[in-house]
Amino acid sequence: MSSDLVPLPEDLPAVLERYLPHIDGDADSLPFVTLTYAQSVDSKIAAKPGTRTHISHAETNTMTHYLRTFHDAILVGVSTVLADDPSLNCRYDGHCVGSSSSIRPVVLDPRFRLADAFQRLKLVQNYRSGKGMKPIIVMSTETPVSADGLSEVADIVRLPTSQGVFSWIELLHALKNDYHIGSVMVEGGAHIINTLLNEIHPATGAALVDSLIVTIGPVYLGQDGVNVSPASPVILKSVKWWTGVQDSVMCATLK
Amino acid sequence: MSSDLVPLPEDLPAVLERYLPHIDGDADSLPFVTLTYAQSVDSKIAAKPGTRTHISHAETNTMTHYLRTFHDAILVGVSTVLADDPSLNCRYDGHCVGSSSSIRPVVLDPRFRLADAFQRLKLVQNYRSGKGMKPIIVMSTETPVSADGLSEVADIVRLPTSQGVFSWIELLHALKNDYHIGSVMVEGGAHIINTLLNEIHPATGAALVDSLIVTIGPVYLGQDGVNVSPASPVILKSVKWWTGVQDSVMCATLK
Repeated sequence: MSSDLVPLPEDLPAVLERYLPHIDGDADSLPFVTLTYAQSVDSKIAAKPGTRTHISHAETNTMTHYLRTFHDAILVGVSTVLADDPSLNCRYDGHCVGSSSSIRPVVLDPRFRLADAFQRLKLVQNYRSGKGMKPIIVMSTETPVSADGLSEVADIVRLPTSQGVFSWIELLHALKNDYHIGSVMVEGGAHIINTLLNEIHPATGAALVDSLIVTIGPVYLGQDGVNVSPASPVILKSVKWWTGVQDSVMCATLK
Repeated sequence: MSSDLVPLPEDLPAVLERYLPHIDGDADSLPFVTLTYAQSVDSKIAAKPGTRTHISHAETNTMTHYLRTFHDAILVGVSTVLADDPSLNCRYDGHCVGSSSSIRPVVLDPRFRLADAFQRLKLVQNYRSGKGMKPIIVMSTETPVSADGLSEVADIVRLPTSQGVFSWIELLHALKNDYHIGSVMVEGGAHIINTLLNEIHPATGAALVDSLIVTIGPVYLGQDGVNVSPASPVILKSVKWWTGVQDSVMCATLK
């Protein structure tokens, strides 16, 4: 079945291979975390808050769908869903492992801001029509939920929040233990990227991000754009660059 | 004569060629402007204000010196000189055109903040010892200058300022008309990069920057870093990426 995607560049899979999820054999370990997003040269992921900006070329968009085939879940924040209404499914149908609908959308939505629009969201409609898996909505334990028929179209994970945010460790454990998610592809938005980049495992001190794949589009979005920059510096390892017709893609590890 | 630089990567000159200064035959035109700097993935040019951070690999540092051989002047802001005490000369001695000391340092220093340290600056010592050309210091017409012996080691350009900043057009005209500078390589810091990226010629509407060459080092410097992002978005043209052992280099035009 063909899709709406342009073909994957032939030399890209070999570059990406070492950054794909792999199992470390430890049943108690956290899911493999791939952090991936597209930014401008000046590190903006959108021209303005609450809007969607096309930064990456069609071929790096295909790369995103190719990467999704190797993961059990896609994770984004509620603001990204409200701004973009993304499909959060996998439309790549190439020669790689995985099937085109085997990835679960996970939305961090502590106060369930999606409530009003929920049934109209693309990711919910995709589930209804068989074009996507059942979404997982992560809410604060303190958020009351009254949406009718919610459980038919979404699984709800409830976790405590501190100052409005979840603990990454608790969240990743819940996804693994309750939903057997062994690999998660985190795609944004800015707050999620910025906090996750600095997150370390309290026991081991290792970064929670395993692989980082950043597409850089040749444009400046300017000072009104939505900025990506973690609170503290982050050193990258095993860096590899790939260049397409328009974008450069940086692959790296954090461990 | 060998220098302290590592060899220039063999495939780099072919990539850079179309972005090098070229004469457009119009005697009234402005100097050719190349804007070049090194940044982190999160678009920081230093980890903290007033400090120097090594972002780029030795081979892209060699690229900077290679590029300097094609230009008549290097231009930086006073904060960069105070933070880095840069040599602002050309130490590349390869197979390209130009000689190793044929580039003039230009420092924008409206209030002559360099006064106290002036005679100790590397760029002044380089001139005294024959390792660099005579620096040009651009000051506000309203700044009193009392430094002894200044004219022996520097040429002073005086231009009006508006809210503390020069007009880029007046500045470039002065460099061309008074000092025969036909090409200038602008290297920072952040305020200069951010304003110059948005600058257009009032008569033609064309960008003042002719070529843009940005090195991206695989590190996040974090939110305390010195940020590069212009006030307004900038669309880039004729984009070409080059990748070295560590960095990616983006070449583009703005016209």
